[in-house]
Amino acid sequence: MTTSTATENDLYIKLILGSWDIQNGRVNKLLGSLSEEQIQARTAPDRNTGTYIIGHLTAVSDGMFPLLDLGNKLFPHLENIFITHPDHANLERPSFAELKNQWHSVSETLTARMKELKPADWLTRHTAISTEDFAKEPHRNKLNVVINRTNHISYHLGQLAYLVKK
Amino acid sequence: MTTSTATENDLYIKLILGSWDIQNGRVNKLLGSLSEEQIQARTAPDRNTGTYIIGHLTAVSDGMFPLLDLGNKLFPHLENIFITHPDHANLERPSFAELKNQWHSVSETLTARMKELKPADWLTRHTAISTEDFAKEPHRNKLNVVINRTNHISYHLGQLAYLVKK
Repeated sequence: MTTSTATENDLYIKLILGSWDIQNGRVNKLLGSLSEEQIQARTAPDRNTGTYIIGHLTAVSDGMFPLLDLGNKLFPHLENIFITHPDHANLERPSFAELKNQWHSVSETLTARMKELKPADWLTRHTAISTEDFAKEPHRNKLNVVINRTNHISYHLGQLAYLVKK
Repeated sequence: MTTSTATENDLYIKLILGSWDIQNGRVNKLLGSLSEEQIQARTAPDRNTGTYIIGHLTAVSDGMFPLLDLGNKLFPHLENIFITHPDHANLERPSFAELKNQWHSVSETLTARMKELKPADWLTRHTAISTEDFAKEPHRNKLNVVINRTNHISYHLGQLAYLVKK
């Protein structure tokens, strides 16, 4: 029975991390195929630029290190530029090459640390919920953070797709 | 041990169906808040209209009935208009009111049927994979279809957001 449980738990985690991998891979593919000029363009008139969205995704993923209790952020200054402030605030930004490196660095390091977690770890609380609240709402666990953040990447991938010439 | 397994399995399913509910709810909210004129507009120059994307999401979700072995499609004619053919093919479409009803009908009926499935059902193969292939790739199960389709809705929600006036 223990073996069967372990296998099933592994399978659920595999599905969810597989989906995370797919969406991260799609961002990588887009970054590898678009020119700097294309990524710096707006995704639609008056909407966010590709650069802002990539910075935003990097900053949000970077925030998952502390949220999942996997260590400190790699680039804590990105939050102010790409989460706290909107695109049109036009704060000083990393260069295009730096931003690409930061995305890859966060995505790869985070994914590697995530894959070290055991099924039982995934069902523990994320760090933004108190022990008391978690006792009442056990679905607010680390795995749920990954499911939500995977959908968040998909959401912005739909917008980044508009940078690709038809 | 059996009780504990059942509880954990329920929790994994709850997380994944919870994410499905959230994305479906966001489409509902958007449909409830935008005018017909806004939804018929293009999400960006030369890109899909809101109408096409809503029809596309409806047709893709409708295809989940047979894929998850939950019955027949409710509106099988939508596949040709909103999946097989692109927006610019300009095939004859349901009226705006019909399309909204079809979305709600598919989303609600499908979700209700999904919630009748037991954890063990979710880990069985979807109908587009053979028994032989599934034996080698057990992650290609019904639950994986829902995870992928949830991300698919998020992807298009990112585009539908551009219909909202700033």
